[in-house]
Amino acid sequence: MFTKQLMIRAPRRGLHMVTDDVAQAVRESGVDTGICNVFIRHTSASLTINENADPTAREDLEVFLDHIAPENEPYYRHTLEGPDDMPSHIKSSLTDSSVNIPVLKGELALGTWQGLYLCEHREQPSARSIIVSVF
Amino acid sequence: MFTKQLMIRAPRRGLHMVTDDVAQAVRESGVDTGICNVFIRHTSASLTINENADPTAREDLEVFLDHIAPENEPYYRHTLEGPDDMPSHIKSSLTDSSVNIPVLKGELALGTWQGLYLCEHREQPSARSIIVSVF
Amino acid sequence: MFTKQLMIRAPRRGLHMVTDDVAQAVRESGVDTGICNVFIRHTSASLTINENADPTAREDLEVFLDHIAPENEPYYRHTLEGPDDMPSHIKSSLTDSSVNIPVLKGELALGTWQGLYLCEHREQPSARSIIVSVF
Repeated sequence: MFTKQLMIRAPRRGLHMVTDDVAQAVRESGVDTGICNVFIRHTSASLTINENADPTAREDLEVFLDHIAPENEPYYRHTLEGPDDMPSHIKSSLTDSSVNIPVLKGELALGTWQGLYLCEHREQPSARSIIVSVF
Repeated sequence: MFTKQLMIRAPRRGLHMVTDDVAQAVRESGVDTGICNVFIRHTSASLTINENADPTAREDLEVFLDHIAPENEPYYRHTLEGPDDMPSHIKSSLTDSSVNIPVLKGELALGTWQGLYLCEHREQPSARSIIVSVF
Repeated sequence: MFTKQLMIRAPRRGLHMVTDDVAQAVRESGVDTGICNVFIRHTSASLTINENADPTAREDLEVFLDHIAPENEPYYRHTLEGPDDMPSHIKSSLTDSSVNIPVLKGELALGTWQGLYLCEHREQPSARSIIVSVF
């Protein structure tokens, strides 16, 4: 079991490609055929696999998440950490804390159009701890 | 591959922390560095990782799921098992049937604020079969 | 690590059971106790585990996804590939690119009512590459 911790700070709220960071860890692992697990150790940032080519796909997905989990819903009671906090938790549960990607021939076996996003849901991004395990 | 079946009945509909039950299974496994997979064998209850400290975060997430997948939508056709059944299936697909958490130094490598929830979507909770695999 | 690629074309847009295809790969693997990872290499089709018995549960879940991620939202900017494309990406992130199912006694340890769906979100289905890894 190869494990590596990545610390990644998104430049701003939104969805950011981290495929290359994870691909680099897979190469370091030396695993030829296996699985790469990526786990984010936070509840206001998350992971998802989606379209890697057109930045507007990422932006539309972000706007969708804002629509579905808006700030300042009257029923929110968990409001102490700011208006972007409870929506961040909701978005984290709708997307993923953990993704598993097959490794074939020593590389992530993503489809042509797939990329891995770090989803930073807070207005003030912080460095996010991501554990990559390859086996 | 260490495997253990947990049978957990939530005290009521809603989101319930089961981190300790899974952490105990990880300790029993004796695995030092690896992955813990948690799988729930049901389609009207599910799993998700989210905020472990403030109970209102759990409650707000539950209310969000009720908002997004309400009972008695006029388009529901799968209604034979009661008004809470189809929303339960929807909520199960929006959250997780299966989560993977890294194991480091013999413990779940969750972030400081992360906990694992059993999401019981039915009004009448039943004992839920959860398989924990550690490797 | 046993790996097998399945190529599956859904007969139409919607949710389609592929449990048997994956169960067959598990039997081919010869693994007795382990994990089966299923990964779809696309961003407009996805996977989810849900109710395996009543076709209306599948249909209601599909209608729910259409409600929550409708076509032609005025804020969509990623529209070049047709009105069903951006909703497909959203639905893919709400459901799963990758699922993990325990293997016990050489079989998928699904619950009685659980099945694995291929979720085809495009109007014109294409053959989808699905990688099954068993370990």
